[in-house]
Amino acid sequence: MIVDTLALVGTGLIGGSFALALKQAGAVRTVLGVGRNPASLDTARERGLIDRVADWAEAGQADCILLALPVGETEAVLNQLAPHLKPGAVITDAGSTKANVVAAARSALGDRFADFVPGHPIAGSEQSGPGAARADLYQGRRVVLTPQSETRSEATATVRALWEAAGAQVELLDAGQHDRIFAAVSHLPHLAAFALVDDLARRADSEVFFRFAASGFRDFTRIAGSSPEMWRDIALANREALLAELDAYLDALQVLRRAVDGEDGDALHEIFSRARAAREHWMKTQDV
Amino acid sequence: MIVDTLALVGTGLIGGSFALALKQAGAVRTVLGVGRNPASLDTARERGLIDRVADWAEAGQADCILLALPVGETEAVLNQLAPHLKPGAVITDAGSTKANVVAAARSALGDRFADFVPGHPIAGSEQSGPGAARADLYQGRRVVLTPQSETRSEATATVRALWEAAGAQVELLDAGQHDRIFAAVSHLPHLAAFALVDDLARRADSEVFFRFAASGFRDFTRIAGSSPEMWRDIALANREALLAELDAYLDALQVLRRAVDGEDGDALHEIFSRARAAREHWMKTQDV
Repeated sequence: MIVDTLALVGTGLIGGSFALALKQAGAVRTVLGVGRNPASLDTARERGLIDRVADWAEAGQADCILLALPVGETEAVLNQLAPHLKPGAVITDAGSTKANVVAAARSALGDRFADFVPGHPIAGSEQSGPGAARADLYQGRRVVLTPQSETRSEATATVRALWEAAGAQVELLDAGQHDRIFAAVSHLPHLAAFALVDDLARRADSEVFFRFAASGFRDFTRIAGSSPEMWRDIALANREALLAELDAYLDALQVLRRAVDGEDGDALHEIFSRARAAREHWMKTQDV
Repeated sequence: MIVDTLALVGTGLIGGSFALALKQAGAVRTVLGVGRNPASLDTARERGLIDRVADWAEAGQADCILLALPVGETEAVLNQLAPHLKPGAVITDAGSTKANVVAAARSALGDRFADFVPGHPIAGSEQSGPGAARADLYQGRRVVLTPQSETRSEATATVRALWEAAGAQVELLDAGQHDRIFAAVSHLPHLAAFALVDDLARRADSEVFFRFAASGFRDFTRIAGSSPEMWRDIALANREALLAELDAYLDALQVLRRAVDGEDGDALHEIFSRARAAREHWMKTQDV
């Protein structure tokens, strides 16, 4: 047992899978659920993700509170929770951006900011909701924590232990570095996939294009099946790093454009070869 | 039996899978293989993709000849074959672009251009070579044929019958329309994936980015594992349509960039939602 009571604010795929894994590992006794959607809370209870539905006051009395919701809602939720937090309660989150979550927590939590451990599990799926939660979602996955100078080391240790009990491998990063890395390897690819599909979808003759799209298109655009709300929030929350990555990507595409326009086969071959080699090297080092 | 003898110029994944499927269907008796790589021809023979290795003169005596190689090699290969073609022999190809292949065939084949049926099977994989060939590669897949006004209808009928025997569904398109469609749904996504991976690979601190790349990145960049030679040839062969698609994509990314820069959450939400809906609709209509 790592904590007696866990409260989930948001009982979808991310929060629900965390609770399932911790229950299975015997790392938590009771799981409370807070959310706006009664049907979703019902499903979470029926599937055993949570033991019961709670209000803000009750959730504040939990030993650990996980926020698993679009990052744009962080500050409002923490404002609700702040008056009810019991002494020693640890708060963490699962948001895909960290600098803005840190700023929101600093503003909402006051003195209790020391008990807030910013986190980001590198796992997910286009599926969402409590129906998609599963105990093995975090098995072998990375979780990044970005504790601040004020963060109590005991709070970080508790959150680390919980993620490890859920099967994940925990790494610490600076929040700004986290945001720059994920702008490049996650946020930009999502925008690039959304842009490509939307560009086709808006054409009068879009059907003939989609008709001949095949497995390469399917995989390239898989992430364009992700939640629009979640990705709007991420794009706004990580605006600065994302703009830098968008500019780098636009430059890279312009280099390719010039090579195609100038029929520079050697330049194209060099870029394609370097990309393939880098990806092959990466695939060998990964279990994704 | 549709044809007695089939000759493959190129005995890799695409040609080898065609031969395996036709043998299995009893649609062809003998398969000859022409290629530059002796090790690859050995593997093709050992795996039963071809019955024996042939030279240009012998290949020209086959009833049907399939070119399955990078599109940039089409004209040189047809120049080799042209003097040896027996009367009535049908020639077809499996290239990813069609207007340039049609031009190459028109130039190399003279009178015999009427026996050339341009084709493009919509199947493949990052795997390549004779070791990757399999009899079911084309099962349920689309094959586009782009016969010209000169093309003999009997030649088109033979090639159609062969692809159908291999399990594919044949569709006819205008060659220019083919190239515009595949510039959008295949060629551009490949360039976009190559550009993204290369942009990361060229950074001094690329390792820290790749370290945190996950399953979304893996799928988005899967096609960046494709053959640099093949994709260089395709980019050059379909230059005009590809430039138009690159420009449309750069515009779409600039629209997103402005929305991020201007913190226009509604615009982002609208684009992401439209893209997701279009992709979900497409996935329901497809078996890819």
